[in-house]
Amino acid sequence: MRQKHKMMMKARRRNIALLVAYDGTIYHGFQRQTPPIVAVQNILEEKLALLFGEPIELAAAGRTDAGVHARGQVVNFFTDGTIPIERIVRAAEGLLPSDIVVRQAFEADPDFSALHSAKTKTYTYRILQGTAGDPFRGRYAWYIRRSLRVKPMATALLHVLGKHDFSSFRAAGGAPMTPARTMETATVNVEGDTILFRFCANGFLYHMVRNLIGTLVDVGLGIKTPDEFAEIMAARSRSLASPTAPAHGLCLERVEYPISCGINDAFDHQRLKS
Amino acid sequence: MRQKHKMMMKARRRNIALLVAYDGTIYHGFQRQTPPIVAVQNILEEKLALLFGEPIELAAAGRTDAGVHARGQVVNFFTDGTIPIERIVRAAEGLLPSDIVVRQAFEADPDFSALHSAKTKTYTYRILQGTAGDPFRGRYAWYIRRSLRVKPMATALLHVLGKHDFSSFRAAGGAPMTPARTMETATVNVEGDTILFRFCANGFLYHMVRNLIGTLVDVGLGIKTPDEFAEIMAARSRSLASPTAPAHGLCLERVEYPISCGINDAFDHQRLKS
Repeated sequence: MRQKHKMMMKARRRNIALLVAYDGTIYHGFQRQTPPIVAVQNILEEKLALLFGEPIELAAAGRTDAGVHARGQVVNFFTDGTIPIERIVRAAEGLLPSDIVVRQAFEADPDFSALHSAKTKTYTYRILQGTAGDPFRGRYAWYIRRSLRVKPMATALLHVLGKHDFSSFRAAGGAPMTPARTMETATVNVEGDTILFRFCANGFLYHMVRNLIGTLVDVGLGIKTPDEFAEIMAARSRSLASPTAPAHGLCLERVEYPISCGINDAFDHQRLKS
Repeated sequence: MRQKHKMMMKARRRNIALLVAYDGTIYHGFQRQTPPIVAVQNILEEKLALLFGEPIELAAAGRTDAGVHARGQVVNFFTDGTIPIERIVRAAEGLLPSDIVVRQAFEADPDFSALHSAKTKTYTYRILQGTAGDPFRGRYAWYIRRSLRVKPMATALLHVLGKHDFSSFRAAGGAPMTPARTMETATVNVEGDTILFRFCANGFLYHMVRNLIGTLVDVGLGIKTPDEFAEIMAARSRSLASPTAPAHGLCLERVEYPISCGINDAFDHQRLKS
């Protein structure tokens, strides 16, 4: 009887999803670390625990690396805390440092998981070109002085579209999983002195975007051709690809869920300029 | 004879002007401080000394406060160092932290002074509106959740144009000087969720822009009317104006010199987006 009561209580716990943005500069990635190392998850869980009056354990859509930013990270957690959903954003703002922001809160279905329900994720990578750095945008872009040619990079990107084995762009140290991913979008655009890459896929291997960018930059510099890029990709060997691009140009822009989750509608992704 | 030789040497020293940008977040303002307090000037002088092989003492157009940013600070210094002018930007980049950037270098006339030759300075102030903060732009803007009305602020700004006694917006602690300043531009514009103020004057009193903004925000919130703003201005008393706005929304955008200096042409102010 007691067991049953407990189970019912469990079943009735709220499942709260949050849309979170952060400047990752000073954090050791998203995933919880042992203090004194601090990750975004450490801070979020600590402050949400104050808000909900009990320990909070988050699941997150993406484990961003140290120094990587997010405009559209999604997390969820179960709680018996009673704070109304519409008060969470403002209350969290009073507790969190200014480089971590809860943008939206949503009362999700009990079976929603920010990690497991995710359909696609979109990452951007920014490269800044010019004769001198920029102290403002330099936190959020890889500054490369030499001029990159965009056209060959765009040609190379055509090879990553669709379902592929991305082993060539996978760093050692990631969790063991199949290296096949389906890339829905892979674009490069020039906006002033910024080169903006955008990747949308059903998942990403460890360091995959940064390894892609490292090799694409060699294509933009004329060190490699788009055909060589395709060969590197087909070789399924990390040793042929170029070095990993720095973390601070990378940003988790958005996570998409099945429409039935209600998350896509609830989280307005337009407000923060990307 | 020896004295004369020394004087000639002195007369022949190079006068180098630099266009400098910095993210002021972690610095105790521009003006040199006693360590362990660190100002932008400490860092610049230390690294330029390495570059020029002798101690460097800077004069700067504007003494920005702790936390204030700059896209267009101008400094100058005299040196016997022989590094070619076209190598300075790149060499400085190798030495300076990424939040301080030398954008341009110029071989100025011997009588040019970044401080004393300045004709006008332009400052911007940014306010960010919205329901949740923004971890990226929050470093460079004052986040105000309540909605500000722009029209009454624009009306109030008409009162600051021209030559006025700005005592009402002058903080205690500044150098004793005449409180009269001539304001050439004072505008407010909305760009998405950012409210952007721009002030161009022949000089600014201590905390003048931040005190103006503090009172303008009260006008935007409907706490004060544009007429009351005009009365505060006419009263020439700091006690009537509103509290000082925070430093991190303020940015020194540009300094203009007489055309004969050659500085305006030499320093391209368009490259860094404001």
